[in-house]
Amino acid sequence: MAKMISFARGAPSLDIIDVDGLRAAADAAFQKDPGGLTAYGSGVGYVPLRDWIAEQHGVPAERVLVTNGSMQADAFLFDALVGRGDTVVVERPTYDRTLLSLRSRGADVRMVELEHDGLDVLALERVLKAGAQPKLAHIIPNFQNPAGYTLSLAKRERLLELAREHDFTVFEDDPYVDLRFAGEPAPTMVSLDPERVVYASSFSKTVCPGIRVGYLVAPAELIARIQKLAVGAYISPNMVAEGIVNEFCRSGALARSIETVKAALAERARTLCECLERELPDARFVAPQGGYFLWVDLPRSTDVGALFEAAATRGVQFVKGSDFMLDGGEASLRLAYAGVTEAEIEEGVGRLAEAYQEIAGGVPVNAAR
Amino acid sequence: MAKMISFARGAPSLDIIDVDGLRAAADAAFQKDPGGLTAYGSGVGYVPLRDWIAEQHGVPAERVLVTNGSMQADAFLFDALVGRGDTVVVERPTYDRTLLSLRSRGADVRMVELEHDGLDVLALERVLKAGAQPKLAHIIPNFQNPAGYTLSLAKRERLLELAREHDFTVFEDDPYVDLRFAGEPAPTMVSLDPERVVYASSFSKTVCPGIRVGYLVAPAELIARIQKLAVGAYISPNMVAEGIVNEFCRSGALARSIETVKAALAERARTLCECLERELPDARFVAPQGGYFLWVDLPRSTDVGALFEAAATRGVQFVKGSDFMLDGGEASLRLAYAGVTEAEIEEGVGRLAEAYQEIAGGVPVNAAR
Repeated sequence: MAKMISFARGAPSLDIIDVDGLRAAADAAFQKDPGGLTAYGSGVGYVPLRDWIAEQHGVPAERVLVTNGSMQADAFLFDALVGRGDTVVVERPTYDRTLLSLRSRGADVRMVELEHDGLDVLALERVLKAGAQPKLAHIIPNFQNPAGYTLSLAKRERLLELAREHDFTVFEDDPYVDLRFAGEPAPTMVSLDPERVVYASSFSKTVCPGIRVGYLVAPAELIARIQKLAVGAYISPNMVAEGIVNEFCRSGALARSIETVKAALAERARTLCECLERELPDARFVAPQGGYFLWVDLPRSTDVGALFEAAATRGVQFVKGSDFMLDGGEASLRLAYAGVTEAEIEEGVGRLAEAYQEIAGGVPVNAAR
Repeated sequence: MAKMISFARGAPSLDIIDVDGLRAAADAAFQKDPGGLTAYGSGVGYVPLRDWIAEQHGVPAERVLVTNGSMQADAFLFDALVGRGDTVVVERPTYDRTLLSLRSRGADVRMVELEHDGLDVLALERVLKAGAQPKLAHIIPNFQNPAGYTLSLAKRERLLELAREHDFTVFEDDPYVDLRFAGEPAPTMVSLDPERVVYASSFSKTVCPGIRVGYLVAPAELIARIQKLAVGAYISPNMVAEGIVNEFCRSGALARSIETVKAALAERARTLCECLERELPDARFVAPQGGYFLWVDLPRSTDVGALFEAAATRGVQFVKGSDFMLDGGEASLRLAYAGVTEAEIEEGVGRLAEAYQEIAGGVPVNAAR
């Protein structure tokens, strides 16, 4: 079989990771602060990195906690705020690991439809008027995973109004914010209402995933509660990794890395859109303005489960739309373009189109191409 | 006030950490395996390090899982095995964070007295005969935290017999095993009964704490269950940190680091014992054969709470014995000697002796010295 081409993993290819920059940052960090990197640290994270993040957000350091990746931040936040049976609003579709994490805690998960400009706030309003009393609304505002859509400013403001009115916390889960390669950014919700919003982000997409550094921005009293959970779980997060990230950020390597990543993503997204238009004209999608993902809706009658199998046979992988919802999504799929080269995208979409022809009842095509 | 001397923290001083070795390991690891260090990894940890650990223990790799520090390993194990109300046997005294972690999970914690050669297995037998049905017995077999005592081979064997007879798991928590500077080692319990024992250890004491790398050795089916918990918590542990540790281990730096640490600990323990004998003749203790800690019993009437305050006034810190028990321990304390130089030990024990004289009703001494 041909070499597998994966549109499945939301991870960058090695060629857009600044490995030399990481080596240099590691060397400098061990030289400058050997004590800070090698000792047990604080449950809030490596203090100079915490300070740097606080500066970027224009908030006092006591509102920031650095964790071993932002998934760990999510887990602490859910442990702190979400009890068994508590209602949590999420987008439909949403990140499958968030769904799993909330359901494993026994949360009452309510999915609210995601539109091309973000959460359907009218639908949320109806859910709230019908009596739902969420503790939390989990929102991925920029280049959403899995859909790639971005929440408009008007909807950000309306969501915050609803949160104040119905007394719930907005969890702004924002790992892709720095990866905008087209269009204009909207302000973060945490900057619009710092008391009502808990913000999470990560260096997985701007430095690399293996470094496992993420963080929360939240009111100081909530950070203090989460610090206790963090100390109980692991004493302190990884000081070596956070020291390397700190040096990477402060030396200017981060800014350069973000430019590299954005340029590559822009090219890959453009290629993917062109190939889909050419090879798979039944696909409906919105051209991404940033991030890793493109969401494809196929004609309603399409069996994406069968497409998945037919594609795998041809050596191409994606994630089924149904994996990101409690129900539905059977005619949709997520294509991640961060981990594939342009040549792989060309080849991969060709294989996908062949698989589609096969399952849509077209003339079978030679799988070997 | 004089500079604080801390016998409180169970952490090494910077002078016995091989910072240059860590820098070199980081550089080599990024060069040799840039893809493995920077990508998301597996929930079981960085595969080459997992393999190295498995080789050291002479077990297949599927029995090993590498975590962000061994506290995190403990937490996963407790999540997997200990439900609310389940009985867990621990040593008396034991590590305060383990006590806290078990109690926060609602475990029924039964403390069994620790003797100079380890757990009082006769007392454990009485507890079992009286009807206790523990899920788990948590044991720190070598240079125990906080007492510094080591479990004899005869008691290791008896404990395993009791575990088989009463069907409980022995959790062998062994971060200090490589730090023996006197006497002969006993075999690990996991090597004596691999099906009945879950083993945890860490690189915090042999590489450095800030690197946050620990691991579990357990039956493969339990490792598979814990892998799911780990993936749900953080996708994968820190690949950069584990890649650095892997290089540090395989290059021979680890073996050299262990020699450095052991030589320093031997000197510090010897100095501490000499100073205590000279300055604080009321102190009863066992000279350590390894590890970080020395446990001091003072005459029964001593109020160690008052000693703690009087010592703090003089700029010296320790941990009260009562912090390591559910009740009792009021005339005992833990002295950690890994983070203090010999000069600091001399000075610190002098201050402690003055504080003791004061609270024991002796002639008050000038706190300024």
